[in-house]
This record gives sequence, structure tokens and C-alpha cells, in this order.
Amino acid sequence: MSRFDQMSKEELAAVHRELREAYEEAAKLGLSLNMSRGKPASDQLDLSEALLTALSHGADCRADGMDLRNYGKLEGIEAARAFFGEMLDAPADQVLVGGNSALNMIFDTLMRAMVFGLHADTEPWMKQGGLKFLCPCPGYDRHFAIAEALGMELIAIPMLSDGPDMDAVEQAVADPAVKGIFCVPKYSNPTGITFSDAVVRRFARLSPAAKDFIIVWDNAYAVHDLYEDGDCLLNLLAEAEAQGRGDMVFTYTSTSKVTFPGAGIAAMAASAANIAYHKKIMSLQSIGPDKLNQLRHIRYLPDMQAVKAHMMRHAECLRPKFEIVLNALDAEVAATGTGSYTRPRGGYFISLDVMDGCAARVWQLLADIGVEMTPAGASFPGKKDPRDRNLRIAPTYPTVEELQVATRLLCLCVKLAAAEKLLGL
Amino acid sequence: MSRFDQMSKEELAAVHRELREAYEEAAKLGLSLNMSRGKPASDQLDLSEALLTALSHGADCRADGMDLRNYGKLEGIEAARAFFGEMLDAPADQVLVGGNSALNMIFDTLMRAMVFGLHADTEPWMKQGGLKFLCPCPGYDRHFAIAEALGMELIAIPMLSDGPDMDAVEQAVADPAVKGIFCVPKYSNPTGITFSDAVVRRFARLSPAAKDFIIVWDNAYAVHDLYEDGDCLLNLLAEAEAQGRGDMVFTYTSTSKVTFPGAGIAAMAASAANIAYHKKIMSLQSIGPDKLNQLRHIRYLPDMQAVKAHMMRHAECLRPKFEIVLNALDAEVAATGTGSYTRPRGGYFISLDVMDGCAARVWQLLADIGVEMTPAGASFPGKKDPRDRNLRIAPTYPTVEELQVATRLLCLCVKLAAAEKLLGL
Repeated sequence: MSRFDQMSKEELAAVHRELREAYEEAAKLGLSLNMSRGKPASDQLDLSEALLTALSHGADCRADGMDLRNYGKLEGIEAARAFFGEMLDAPADQVLVGGNSALNMIFDTLMRAMVFGLHADTEPWMKQGGLKFLCPCPGYDRHFAIAEALGMELIAIPMLSDGPDMDAVEQAVADPAVKGIFCVPKYSNPTGITFSDAVVRRFARLSPAAKDFIIVWDNAYAVHDLYEDGDCLLNLLAEAEAQGRGDMVFTYTSTSKVTFPGAGIAAMAASAANIAYHKKIMSLQSIGPDKLNQLRHIRYLPDMQAVKAHMMRHAECLRPKFEIVLNALDAEVAATGTGSYTRPRGGYFISLDVMDGCAARVWQLLADIGVEMTPAGASFPGKKDPRDRNLRIAPTYPTVEELQVATRLLCLCVKLAAAEKLLGL
Repeated sequence: MSRFDQMSKEELAAVHRELREAYEEAAKLGLSLNMSRGKPASDQLDLSEALLTALSHGADCRADGMDLRNYGKLEGIEAARAFFGEMLDAPADQVLVGGNSALNMIFDTLMRAMVFGLHADTEPWMKQGGLKFLCPCPGYDRHFAIAEALGMELIAIPMLSDGPDMDAVEQAVADPAVKGIFCVPKYSNPTGITFSDAVVRRFARLSPAAKDFIIVWDNAYAVHDLYEDGDCLLNLLAEAEAQGRGDMVFTYTSTSKVTFPGAGIAAMAASAANIAYHKKIMSLQSIGPDKLNQLRHIRYLPDMQAVKAHMMRHAECLRPKFEIVLNALDAEVAATGTGSYTRPRGGYFISLDVMDGCAARVWQLLADIGVEMTPAGASFPGKKDPRDRNLRIAPTYPTVEELQVATRLLCLCVKLAAAEKLLGL
């Protein structure tokens, strides 16, 4: 099929009729498919089966000279701090290991900033009012939802192929009401790109007007390569500390998509001063995290070499799925000029830009025939994509067979919506 | 030994010399004993060994029609909600099951009240300012520390033998700045008493001036009986709901001292409206708790009958320890009139009132010979016991042998400090 924009009106009308017929046929199938969820599939979860029995006796439950079954160790067990220190490129003593959710640690950090202040010597955000937060977009809807619920004004920053538009970021942080920025710096959600060294260095040199500005560096896909030679992300914490600006950097990760999303372990790393201050507030909240689950993880994945090997087994499950989507998009969408998309080398998403003004229509067309996608606009502040063109594809959770059908229908609907638009229907 | 207050000055001086000699002897032993920690001992932790392997295969990890290894189920798995519903006397759909710490759920509830408001239609506490919180004392230092850190004024309420002084509570809540009260209603920390039905009913009928008043009902020792026929606590949530006042009640518990303090599961129960509202905010914080650890618990302890049997095994470990302390206090402290104490039928603590002005001295005398107690005053707001008389005894963590020595020295120091006081030394 050739490019829609090079067809005559008659040619395009014929194509539209064919697409519409194919769509009506698909509608009869009564499908129920889902490409909306950034979840591992069940074959990936099976990879970590041995984690379940990594601790089987009371005598296994010792570390750091203590019985981990009992209270204590708010900062997490030493081996887990070292493990995440390696994953996040941070000294182990600047790492706090928590429960099963990095999102929880991010939310809690921002809540502490609201109530107690981000740093020991800064005012609670809540006492300042008029707060704003930078949201590179398309980005992660759960990040944006937190800032929105905290009453902040969300400022959209364009996401480019090498990271957020740093000119826009540098300009925005001159406003002292701008308190932070959300980043998924490696295999970003949803575009799948990894921030370039140049972008990371500009972050490290960022000089915000607000003394209590936070870079929420959510390194959720730190080890989630699809290929042996994964993307490399420069170490922001170290770069910023070298500039004397380490206090604005808070980094997070978890094993949610390494072992079990429902029962992994999460961590945060930050400057020594931030860790000391935030840990002190956390000591009011808890006597300590689930240390047995931390030890279970360390027994099962003792070091980054084990993690790397484990992640290559995930990649074997995931690569074919990404390739199904990308091959179909190449053949159907790129060939017709009806959309453009990213080719992530890791992570959980592919970001698809359809023709301007068509994303919500594509979503609706798919929904009507039983294919669920993340709602159009979800990756933008206020759930509003100003160009109504972006769709997030989550290829990991369906089976290969389901994904093949869903992808074929996605391409069909992208073309159908484009034809409708070009024909003024 | 007879009562100190019935001795002549000469008799008492002789007793003091003997006590002082015994103390000097003890000092030579170079002991290192600890009666400060409300922690289960290692034989208690061994009781739950089978919990570690309650889930051993991927196929074990299903419930509620889903794979619990994956994301989701913010409210907790259904079986765990039913389990805690039974433990807390609440409908399962008014229960949220979280991670490993009830303290964490309490802290988070208060943080939500600070930032978002306690109820959907009340102002954030942080926007109101001048907040006060009621602290029955002696009480739980970690509760008081939260309110203090949140900038609240702590108001001491005397703890009586059947619960907090309800006259004082009813009077205090007439002030709209008073936002709540902390309660450990069963086997209270540290006095070990259980609130009477009359006290619970007065709580249920409480009519605070503040629309956003919270009763933090921390039922930490809900099933922690030392004897077959444990204390019975009236169901505050149901009583308050019957009065149309259920929205002020938030109840909490955990399995920290049922299975593993470091790796248990915790829950909160509240009115349907509160659960809906707080769950909505929690959906910003997390995609879901560690569901595998919830299922592990349910497999290991499927119902309250299993819990009751399990807790009787704990009681077998704990009863001898409580009896060592109480027998020694009877023989040495009661007999000499140098202190009074509670006789808890469950929980983790015994509360000892020595002579006024002597608690800090007793603590110091013990510390100097290697016996660590919870600091005097710790159970009071601001860590200040106005009569300097209360000491919290935590008999659970030491071995029986250690406890015998530590208790003997405690009694020695209580008497020594009393003799010093009566002699004006």
C-alpha cells in the first residue's frame, strides 16, 4: 500500500471502503483483547519461580548480624542496599530499600516535601502554595496524577528523541514556583527512548530558582534491555554531585518487572544529606520494610551479573512481541505515511503518533471492536494531548497470538482514521 | 521485707546499705541485658516457620481470579480482607490490607489528612493550623512522635484502669483544634489494660467539635492473649456506626506479633465512605500491596481458629516471662510498697509506677550496671512524665534466664531509689 497523502481522492476513497469493510468484518469477531497494560506476561513471571522458596527455614533469615524476621533495619538490609546501589550507580549507604513499589517511594517523597519540606532547611511545599511541576510528555500518567492531586499546575515539556527538551526545562526552572520534574530516563514510558549523555549533563547542571526543586529520576527500566547491548544511561546522581547539585536528584527503581510486580522490592537513592533527612522522617512511619522479601531477592539474584542473565530471559519473551508490533507498523503505518513511532531497545512500551487529531478516534474504533488501548491523551498532563495524536502501545501482556490480531486491528484503525480525516469524513 | 514507709529511719538506712552493697556486686558482673524492646523472641518467630514456604510454585499464587504475582488489587486480596475483617470485627469490604506495618498505615492516614483532608469534604489539616491531638498516657511513644512531628500540640489524657479518662476526653474534644486521639484499646501499650465496654461506648458517642476528628484505634494486640479466656474488646466501629458516627473511627492491626514483625501484613478498617475516599488517594501511591505475602499468610493461618491456636503457642512462650516479672514485683516491690504495676492478660508490656520522682533514677541505676530499659518518660507526650514515676517493662525479648537476672536487678533498683528518696539522699 502506498502513502495516503500521495493518493488521489478517488484512490483514497476506494482504500477507505476496503478498510471500512475489513473493520466491519473484525467487529463481527466479538474480540476481547488488551494492549493497554504495562504488565509482564505469565511466562515472564514463571522465570522467577525459585524466588518463592529462596528462604525456607528460620536459619536462612539472618543477615547483618540480626534475625530479619524481627523488627528493624529501616534503611533495608545491607546486601539489598548494595544491590540497588549497583543498579542505580549509587553508593550503598545512599540507598534506602523499601517495600514492593517505587511509585510508593516517589509518592512518599513528595508527601514529605509537602508536609515537612524537601530538605531539612526548606519550607514545606504546602506552606508555599502555587506549586508547578514539569511533565515531559508523552510521559507516565501515574507521575502526572500525583502532582495533579497535590494541587500543582502541570507544565508540559516536549519529549524529544534524546530526552526532554532541555531548553524548555532550563527556561521553566527560572520560576521559583516550579518544584520539580518527572523523568523515566531509560526506556522512557511511553516513548522507549533513553536520555542522552548531553541531556543528563544538562540536568546535572540545572540551576533552578527553587531551592527545593526535585528531579524525580524514576529509573524503572534500569536493567530492562531487549538486546544484549542495552542503552547506557549516564549516572545523574554522580554527575550532579560533581557539580555540587546532588541534593536535587532523587532516583528510584524496583524489581517489579524483574521478579514479581506484586511482590518485588523497591529502592531510592539520593545525596547523603537527603537520605539522612528523609530516613529520619521515615522512622516515624515504619520500624522497617519487609526484610525477608529483600533477602529472598538477594538470595535469588545475588548480583548484577545474575540480574543481566535473568533480564535476557525476559528479553526472549519480550523481543518477539515488540517485533510483531514494529513489523506490522512498518508494513502498514510507515508505508502509508499514517503514523510514526519509536523503536525502543528496552522497556515496556512503543509510542505511536498517528495523524494529528486522530488518536482519540483510533482508540474509539478499537474499543468498539473489543481491543482495549491506553486512552488517547493518557500520557499527557490533564490527560489531554494537544495534538490528539499519541497512543501508547503495551505489547507485553497479551500472548503472541492475541498480539498479532490486536496489532493487525490497530494498524487497520490507524489507516481508517487517517483516511477519514483526509477525506473529511 | 516489709513496707519502706513503715520502717524507722534506722531500719531504712540499714536496708539501704544492704541494697547498695547488692547493687555494687551486680555492677561487677558486667551485664548486658535488655528489657526495652517490645519484640517477640526467636522461639516465637520459629512458630511461623511454615509461613516461609506457604507458597512454593507459580500455580499457588492465584486468588480472586488473578495472578497475584502481577500488579493490582490495591485493597488487598479478598481472603486477607475477610481475615482482618474478622480480626477487627469489620465487614471485609471496609478493610484495606497493606504491607508489613500498621504504623505505616496510621502514618499515611494522618499524612493524607494533612495534605488532602481526613474526609472528602473536610479541609486539609495543614491548611487549618494550630492542631492538637489527645495522647492517653502512659501510651505508645511512636504514636506521640508522629503527632509531634506533624507540629501538633500533644494533650495528655490520663490512662485509667478501664481506658482513657473519658471525662477528660469529652471535655477536650469541645475544642475544634483537637483533631484526634491515639488508642491501643486492647492490652494497651504499655499498661496492658483493655478498654471497658463503657469506655468504648463513650467513644462511640463522642461528639467532637472538629468535623475531621479521628479516633486512631490501633488494635495492635487484638489476638495477643496470654490466657485462653482473653480480654474482650467491644467493637468500636460498629458501635460508632450505630450512633451515626462511624466516620471518626479508623482501626488498624497487623500480624507483626502473630507471624514475623519484619514480614507480616497489616490492615485498616473504617467506614465505607472513609475506605472509598482513602483508597482513592492510595491509588496515587501504589498499584497494590505485596499480595503474595498476603496469600502466604492466609494459606498459613486460614481463619481465626487457626490464629487462636497459633496465639496460644505464643502465649506458652510469653506467660512464663510475664510471670517471672510479676512474681518478682509481688515479692519485692509490692511487699515493700515501693511501686505499683499492672497485671496484663495479654500484649507485650507491664507498666510499673515507682515512687514519684524515682523513674529516671531507676532507669539510670539499671543502665549503669548494663540493664537497658525503655527510657523513663518515653510513654508520655514530649517524653516527659510529669510525676517521673512510670517505667515500661518489656519482658518478651530476653531469654528466661536473662529475664530472671534483669528482673531481680530491676526490683533491686526500684527499692534502692525508693530508699534514697525516703532517706533524702
